[in-house]
Amino acid sequence: MMTKPFITPTIPQGQFVAKQWQCPIDSHDTDGFTAFHAETAQPLPPFFYQASLAELALAGHAARDAARWYSQQSGQLRADLLNAIADELSDCPHLLARLQLETGLALARLQAELQRTTGQLRAFAASIATPTSRHVAATDSTPALWQLDWPLGPVAVFAASNFPLAFSVAGGDTAAALAAGCPVIVKAHPAHPGGSALTMLAIERAMQRLAIPVALVQLLQSSDPSFSHAVAGHPAIAAVSFTGSKTAGLALAQTCQQRPIPIPCFGELGAVNPQVVLTTLSQTQRQGLADSAFQAITGSGGQLCTKPGLWLIPAGAAGDALVAELVERIDNFAGATLLGPSYLARYESLSMQRSAQSLLIAQGHAAANRACGRLWSAEAATVLASTDAWWQQEIFGPCAQIIRYQQTSELVQLFAQLEGQLAVSLHGELTDDAPWLERLAELCGRLLYNQLPTGVLVHPYMMHGGPFPASTNPQHSAVGLAAMRRFVRPLCIQAASLADAQRLALALQVQPTLKNSS
Amino acid sequence: MMTKPFITPTIPQGQFVAKQWQCPIDSHDTDGFTAFHAETAQPLPPFFYQASLAELALAGHAARDAARWYSQQSGQLRADLLNAIADELSDCPHLLARLQLETGLALARLQAELQRTTGQLRAFAASIATPTSRHVAATDSTPALWQLDWPLGPVAVFAASNFPLAFSVAGGDTAAALAAGCPVIVKAHPAHPGGSALTMLAIERAMQRLAIPVALVQLLQSSDPSFSHAVAGHPAIAAVSFTGSKTAGLALAQTCQQRPIPIPCFGELGAVNPQVVLTTLSQTQRQGLADSAFQAITGSGGQLCTKPGLWLIPAGAAGDALVAELVERIDNFAGATLLGPSYLARYESLSMQRSAQSLLIAQGHAAANRACGRLWSAEAATVLASTDAWWQQEIFGPCAQIIRYQQTSELVQLFAQLEGQLAVSLHGELTDDAPWLERLAELCGRLLYNQLPTGVLVHPYMMHGGPFPASTNPQHSAVGLAAMRRFVRPLCIQAASLADAQRLALALQVQPTLKNSS
Repeated sequence: MMTKPFITPTIPQGQFVAKQWQCPIDSHDTDGFTAFHAETAQPLPPFFYQASLAELALAGHAARDAARWYSQQSGQLRADLLNAIADELSDCPHLLARLQLETGLALARLQAELQRTTGQLRAFAASIATPTSRHVAATDSTPALWQLDWPLGPVAVFAASNFPLAFSVAGGDTAAALAAGCPVIVKAHPAHPGGSALTMLAIERAMQRLAIPVALVQLLQSSDPSFSHAVAGHPAIAAVSFTGSKTAGLALAQTCQQRPIPIPCFGELGAVNPQVVLTTLSQTQRQGLADSAFQAITGSGGQLCTKPGLWLIPAGAAGDALVAELVERIDNFAGATLLGPSYLARYESLSMQRSAQSLLIAQGHAAANRACGRLWSAEAATVLASTDAWWQQEIFGPCAQIIRYQQTSELVQLFAQLEGQLAVSLHGELTDDAPWLERLAELCGRLLYNQLPTGVLVHPYMMHGGPFPASTNPQHSAVGLAAMRRFVRPLCIQAASLADAQRLALALQVQPTLKNSS
Repeated sequence: MMTKPFITPTIPQGQFVAKQWQCPIDSHDTDGFTAFHAETAQPLPPFFYQASLAELALAGHAARDAARWYSQQSGQLRADLLNAIADELSDCPHLLARLQLETGLALARLQAELQRTTGQLRAFAASIATPTSRHVAATDSTPALWQLDWPLGPVAVFAASNFPLAFSVAGGDTAAALAAGCPVIVKAHPAHPGGSALTMLAIERAMQRLAIPVALVQLLQSSDPSFSHAVAGHPAIAAVSFTGSKTAGLALAQTCQQRPIPIPCFGELGAVNPQVVLTTLSQTQRQGLADSAFQAITGSGGQLCTKPGLWLIPAGAAGDALVAELVERIDNFAGATLLGPSYLARYESLSMQRSAQSLLIAQGHAAANRACGRLWSAEAATVLASTDAWWQQEIFGPCAQIIRYQQTSELVQLFAQLEGQLAVSLHGELTDDAPWLERLAELCGRLLYNQLPTGVLVHPYMMHGGPFPASTNPQHSAVGLAAMRRFVRPLCIQAASLADAQRLALALQVQPTLKNSS
């Protein structure tokens, strides 16, 4: 019964709860896990303690207190906090190096992701800094009505493995929740616990700089899936955001729904993002497409939820040429380090299954602990005759499935069988006769024309999400400023006069600027 | 095996599916139900056939076809349809008379409700008639991004009993869904099948006038709760809206969640809408409050989801005086006809239970087949000591529960126990020291100051909905133009240039007007 010393003093091994780094002191403190060196598959020190249910209870309590305090703060304070987090994140000397070890992602990619992450934080800050930004609308009709955005309460953010910055501890979900006025409890992804703890330290410094008196952001580390359900089921949690696998996301959504008080679960569950190559694709387009497709399939080790994992390519010489160019590139691909040994193992196992279902037509260089590029191809007729939808299963890694179609009627049948997608692209020239186009719009959150779906822009018009099972709520985007809408609800204030309504709003400490529009 | 003749030729007894009034011709056609005369409790002819699963399948198929056609129509056509429905509804000579029989609601109330219903239809029409109304936003950044609202698909509308026009076949949910570009399948409420069929006839005439070639609105009649779950579970249905009891609404939400492809369920489930009387209530305010409270408790037979059913009144002389004024009014209340004999039976049974839990302090005149007004009162200390939340149970009918509190600390404890509400009102003068106010905002969708919650304005700033269990989705309003947002999702179009994006949009027949803002 004693406090264990930190093995690596710079990386806290415990939970950040109620403004403190918790050190487990009871007999459960031997329960824990490590990250793995993505390139060597060796365990990476330090040892991280599994968060306990007692720590979760403490975090829930602190988050509730924080919610009350935070909902009364000005937009300016929220903006200051988001900017301070961005500042601190930009000044974490060991963060990217640690994440390189834990995720195997290239330094350049992590640098770009850090830029994106701080950019997101600053964009949310800019959108809420002005007094009107609480989205207060008022009318002096009789009775007077106001509407404002009310924060839902503490949000549980389940971090993703594949974006250890942009969709992790200080990622888009955390930024959106803080901008919306909600405290955050992050359940860190067990594939990068060290990077998560270092990010939490940066947020802690930002909160200290602003003398935030409450537990606005807390961090729980666990490699135990049942703990995630305990978090989502905790009564203090008012909403869940999740980025990850379909299996894990759907289970979490079910937990959220089956609580005594159900809460919304915004799960972004991935997709195969079909790429429809039209017969009108020109030769010039083809060359460019082969290059960009190769990049999109293999970039970040093919571990993006927007990876174009399914290619519908016409039969015939032009289609053959495109396939040949893709095969050549994949055959020469040097392989990729995946996010961790378990990712590689799963990639190999799913690849083996796929090779039993479809013809392996390209395979890149094999190297120890690296995933080699792979392409499979099947005829549309064969796919359409199969009894299960193996061709729609997402495989995380540098690979893609090709389906060759003979005629538009086969395409239409494939479209009918496709499930909800984050994105669908068309490649080639659209002709006026495309009655099947609406089915594609029905299927996805983003429809692209001669564009690859990777490289999701952080923009107000972006939609990152899509019909089930691409997400658990297609009415919201996980990227862009609209992501904030997930964590607020409308509250109407009604009074006999605008002056009375203002009186009530002041008592609520809402401090709005009136806007007399209807 | 022959077609049965209609008993009352002007009221179709079957389903309106695939643009036809279906006449059951097989052995199942003896399965059916009637409405009841609300005043005499006698069955009201005609006999209505229960919709069959075969009819549901036909309706689902037709709705899917309609969805595809309708999503490609202009905002102008949608607006024309909504206006035509409003026109036809205003010209239904027998509709209000039939609804008077079926619901027991007064003619003046039904006339006002009809005005509100046609007003809603026209308001939605006005909001979507202009070309920009498809909510298309575009930017010519590189790549170019567009965002537009995409209709979710066929919506199942479960009609309410207590608003046989405004929340029924041509009510707000139907108007919102049609405005959003979604076909509607209405599951009529079995308490007013005749009014539902007559409303459907009006919509049919409107669709004929505009030569709508598809089944945009369909009607299913059933008194079997399991049929509702079959409707919500049908694969063609993309969203559900429901207004009614907590039990029925939560069961429906569960069905929506447990489908192979879960769909959103927008359920508005009612509340007790606590009225907090402050010690600062002046004598002048008191007199006005007694009048308006009496109206709000007994109006429409006390069968409004916004009825102020729970009154927190301070102990002491001023509170005593308010209670005495309420008691006097309720004691003299002549009683109300409820929506049907089953509503009266339930009112009496819940009243009996309540009288065992709390002191009955007022009871109006009793007359055959009428519900008499009732007031119960309890001490806050007693309520806080009770082990269940009997005082939070909604009782449909002209009654209210009073709780007398000694001090603010008791109020705060009651607030802590309250579940989610549609509305909460404060009566009296707000002082600067009201730290408990935020808890009230947390609890409800609408916070009122010296206002009663009944008489929900159809206004963009209205919020009719609230935290669970007042609704199944507190992020949306069931009243006002925002109700349309429930039935669309964002679709992003991405292309190399704005011209290319426009090319794709034209092929989708979206016909937008561009708006170059970011």
